[in-house]
Amino acid sequence: MGLSRDNKKMNSILILSGGMDSATLAYHLKVKKHNIHAITFNYNQRHKKEIESAKKVAKNLNIQHTILDISNIGNMLKGSSLTDDIATPHGHYAADNMKLTVVPNRNTIMLSIAYGIAVSEKSDIVATAVHAGDHFIYPDCRESFIKSLESTLQLGNDSKIELYTPYINYSKGDIALEGDKLLVPYQDTWTCYEGGDKHCGKCGACIERKEAFEINNIKDVTEYL
Amino acid sequence: MGLSRDNKKMNSILILSGGMDSATLAYHLKVKKHNIHAITFNYNQRHKKEIESAKKVAKNLNIQHTILDISNIGNMLKGSSLTDDIATPHGHYAADNMKLTVVPNRNTIMLSIAYGIAVSEKSDIVATAVHAGDHFIYPDCRESFIKSLESTLQLGNDSKIELYTPYINYSKGDIALEGDKLLVPYQDTWTCYEGGDKHCGKCGACIERKEAFEINNIKDVTEYL
Repeated sequence: MGLSRDNKKMNSILILSGGMDSATLAYHLKVKKHNIHAITFNYNQRHKKEIESAKKVAKNLNIQHTILDISNIGNMLKGSSLTDDIATPHGHYAADNMKLTVVPNRNTIMLSIAYGIAVSEKSDIVATAVHAGDHFIYPDCRESFIKSLESTLQLGNDSKIELYTPYINYSKGDIALEGDKLLVPYQDTWTCYEGGDKHCGKCGACIERKEAFEINNIKDVTEYL
Repeated sequence: MGLSRDNKKMNSILILSGGMDSATLAYHLKVKKHNIHAITFNYNQRHKKEIESAKKVAKNLNIQHTILDISNIGNMLKGSSLTDDIATPHGHYAADNMKLTVVPNRNTIMLSIAYGIAVSEKSDIVATAVHAGDHFIYPDCRESFIKSLESTLQLGNDSKIELYTPYINYSKGDIALEGDKLLVPYQDTWTCYEGGDKHCGKCGACIERKEAFEINNIKDVTEYL
């Protein structure tokens, strides 16, 4: 899960959602001079607007970008407000109702596809911006899970390709702080779980985003409703 | 990986390729009176004919059947004769060139998608017909991998859903023997890796199929070229 071969030019597959975490990770890898192939998944999320943000980030960085339509899979992963006709819960992530935003096995599916592409392209790492703020609600963002998945994927492919998760123990505030130093254009990123034109400012994802900037006295360039 | 709750009516997600192994497993689950939801993947395999066989098997058994088109993912998993424009190798599975038939991370991707559907549908198990004959060539068919994947999937979903792999230590002959008892209509199944109208009889998959019947003195109802 670390990055053990930092001295050579690395080839990275990056899961780029278009949110601020994966956008920051894209800049992080670019600074390390990785060859980056970013993969964005359309799983029929309500907040498809993040895909447009992913395109902007990839264009800013001039990196290879593939948008994979797995909406037919997403349509079968029922029970989440991100994909189903269930109202988006408002309030802090810690609140019980944020469990409504869990899409069954989403990270395993995305990371498995990305890993297959990495094997195929002989990449060195698969990078994903899971962070500590996700741990409480999402079991597939915890370090124990990522470690278990990494060893499963290596076993299943006789492979040494690593999962690279530098933010696994970062808060979202820590990510914003790194992104501020890397001059990530956060106006080009999308966080809100609602399907609107502007960030709602009220869903768990928006609240976490706002606080990440506030806590570090970073100017929040997001346009909220 | 066992089936620990055999006494209750189980809900199963079955990965049904249309080959003889997964067809036999479908009959195996039906005899156990499972509610079966079969999932067939179109990953742009050269031998798409197996999908038609999967339809026949599902129809014979009158079970729920979903065909998931993941050909856009399959197109990114390069380097295999099953999906790329590479000649299908002939000869026994043990031969080195059968490695050409490995599709990177195929089983992890399919099992992860199936597992997400199982979580969503509150199923008890995800069944897959991996068997010992696959172990030599395909690392993602080995028992150590299946065990590792099962615990990863359970961890990532706070779930107790099991991977059910009753054939993990069966030879293909053992499967044919079970299928013969279960009256599996093998004429409705497809094994050949070539894209032709009839089984070629020469690729590794066909040779293994032939031998599975021969070794048990079971009449082979397959039409070979």
